[in-house]
Amino acid sequence: MPSWEPSDAGYQARIRASFARQSIMATIGADLAKVAPGAIDIALPYRGDLTQQHGFLHAGVITIIADSACGYAALSLMPARASVLTVEYKVNLLAPAAGERMIARGRVLKPGKTLTVCTADVVAISEGREKTIATMTGTLMAIYDRPDVPAGF
Amino acid sequence: MPSWEPSDAGYQARIRASFARQSIMATIGADLAKVAPGAIDIALPYRGDLTQQHGFLHAGVITIIADSACGYAALSLMPARASVLTVEYKVNLLAPAAGERMIARGRVLKPGKTLTVCTADVVAISEGREKTIATMTGTLMAIYDRPDVPAGF
Amino acid sequence: MPSWEPSDAGYQARIRASFARQSIMATIGADLAKVAPGAIDIALPYRGDLTQQHGFLHAGVITIIADSACGYAALSLMPARASVLTVEYKVNLLAPAAGERMIARGRVLKPGKTLTVCTADVVAISEGREKTIATMTGTLMAIYDRPDVPAGF
Amino acid sequence: MPSWEPSDAGYQARIRASFARQSIMATIGADLAKVAPGAIDIALPYRGDLTQQHGFLHAGVITIIADSACGYAALSLMPARASVLTVEYKVNLLAPAAGERMIARGRVLKPGKTLTVCTADVVAISEGREKTIATMTGTLMAIYDRPDVPAGF
Repeated sequence: MPSWEPSDAGYQARIRASFARQSIMATIGADLAKVAPGAIDIALPYRGDLTQQHGFLHAGVITIIADSACGYAALSLMPARASVLTVEYKVNLLAPAAGERMIARGRVLKPGKTLTVCTADVVAISEGREKTIATMTGTLMAIYDRPDVPAGF
Repeated sequence: MPSWEPSDAGYQARIRASFARQSIMATIGADLAKVAPGAIDIALPYRGDLTQQHGFLHAGVITIIADSACGYAALSLMPARASVLTVEYKVNLLAPAAGERMIARGRVLKPGKTLTVCTADVVAISEGREKTIATMTGTLMAIYDRPDVPAGF
Repeated sequence: MPSWEPSDAGYQARIRASFARQSIMATIGADLAKVAPGAIDIALPYRGDLTQQHGFLHAGVITIIADSACGYAALSLMPARASVLTVEYKVNLLAPAAGERMIARGRVLKPGKTLTVCTADVVAISEGREKTIATMTGTLMAIYDRPDVPAGF
Repeated sequence: MPSWEPSDAGYQARIRASFARQSIMATIGADLAKVAPGAIDIALPYRGDLTQQHGFLHAGVITIIADSACGYAALSLMPARASVLTVEYKVNLLAPAAGERMIARGRVLKPGKTLTVCTADVVAISEGREKTIATMTGTLMAIYDRPDVPAGF
């Protein structure tokens, strides 16, 4: 993976503040595990109330942490006044989401003034071993002036 | 949309039982709103603890109901002994998920013995008016004999 | 499908001129079959030199006409000074591309100042009967000021 | 990237024979540049008759080589009696396809008895320098008994 320079030195505080406002993260018990330029990890312990019919974490729950990991990876390289919106993503599910803890690793593949392309691999950790369970590619958009989207983060 | 014939007359009971086992649905407050051959609707009232940083429902939450709507739409046409797994999906986000209630409408586009392709449109309802906020296309797989996936539903 | 208003009355001439500059279309023998606001059809007769290993048209060839049908559908609603670039697309292949003639039907799902979301269904026609063989969803971008992209169309 | 073991020692000959039957490859001038287990490269020199309206290679042309690179990467790990079909793919376009030569690098991400997930990065080479212009994730299916698909490759 390439290394990126943030355009706003205060990107870490912005991302942590924005993450704290994503109420869904507290609801499912997810945490920011890494905040670096173009590289965000979000961790989610397994919980029995987040599952599909076979007792694995629901694919949409995995998507929550993968999407936010991509979104904040993109935001980490944007100017301070930018907000970020998800344009689209695709997820391939590689294995059942079984394990003690999931980590979504969002990485910037191609930054841009308007559009940023990110990928996220999601791994499940069981007894210290990692297994990749899903992979996402997504497009994120920097928003500077949309009245329906609050500015700042 | 075409109309489809279920291969198992008991598909409705199977889907309702499976949905009841998806613990995430109770956690976020989602309900089965329609169960027909190849056509499943899942409804989700807005809740302040399911949001991203701007107060809209998180895209991953929208994906939860869209994915399950596609999965059950596919399952509705499968034999009684089949389980269903999601292979992949892509979501394009068309508008912020603002409104009183979201409905994901999963529809079978192309059924198959092994793979079924579905689409889901997600609408937001505000004061009786619908707005499409997201669209999904996904691939679902019928599982007959995988030891890691419980049979039946 | 909704009906759309073009923002530039000369959109048809712009699209036909741009299509004529897509040299790949002459190379594979594709034609503009419909040019309407937000709705473009591109037709491609079967040819034996465009196939994959089983003698069906290659999925990438189908993607050529689906992508351009989406791109011109998006462009049909953009101002005269805009160019259009493809951001991303996803294609689900539903059946082998066998038949006398393929038609890709690109339709605007959600227009926007910067981004437009389109879908394209591709049908194969054999002895007067249509069969859907592929479906695309894609994101197109209006370009107004990128020095690496010629303006105008 | 992980390393994979082929299940059929004759995979190289099978892939080269199948590639030779993909008539589109000769039509556009593409060549097999690498054939290894789970890793296939396809190279395509720039040609003026394969372009979109700005003179860059058409995204669908890039998709032709990326799809076949993924398909043969998947096939390289399948039993000798398997055929391979593309289920779906998504392409994010990262930069205009300008350069002397394109290389699509298909890699297996997750092999499976029925479904294999692959990725392909496509790079443009200009004056000896590489630039990534597109990235694909796709799902490929092993076919053993479909009467509409010739067995063998």
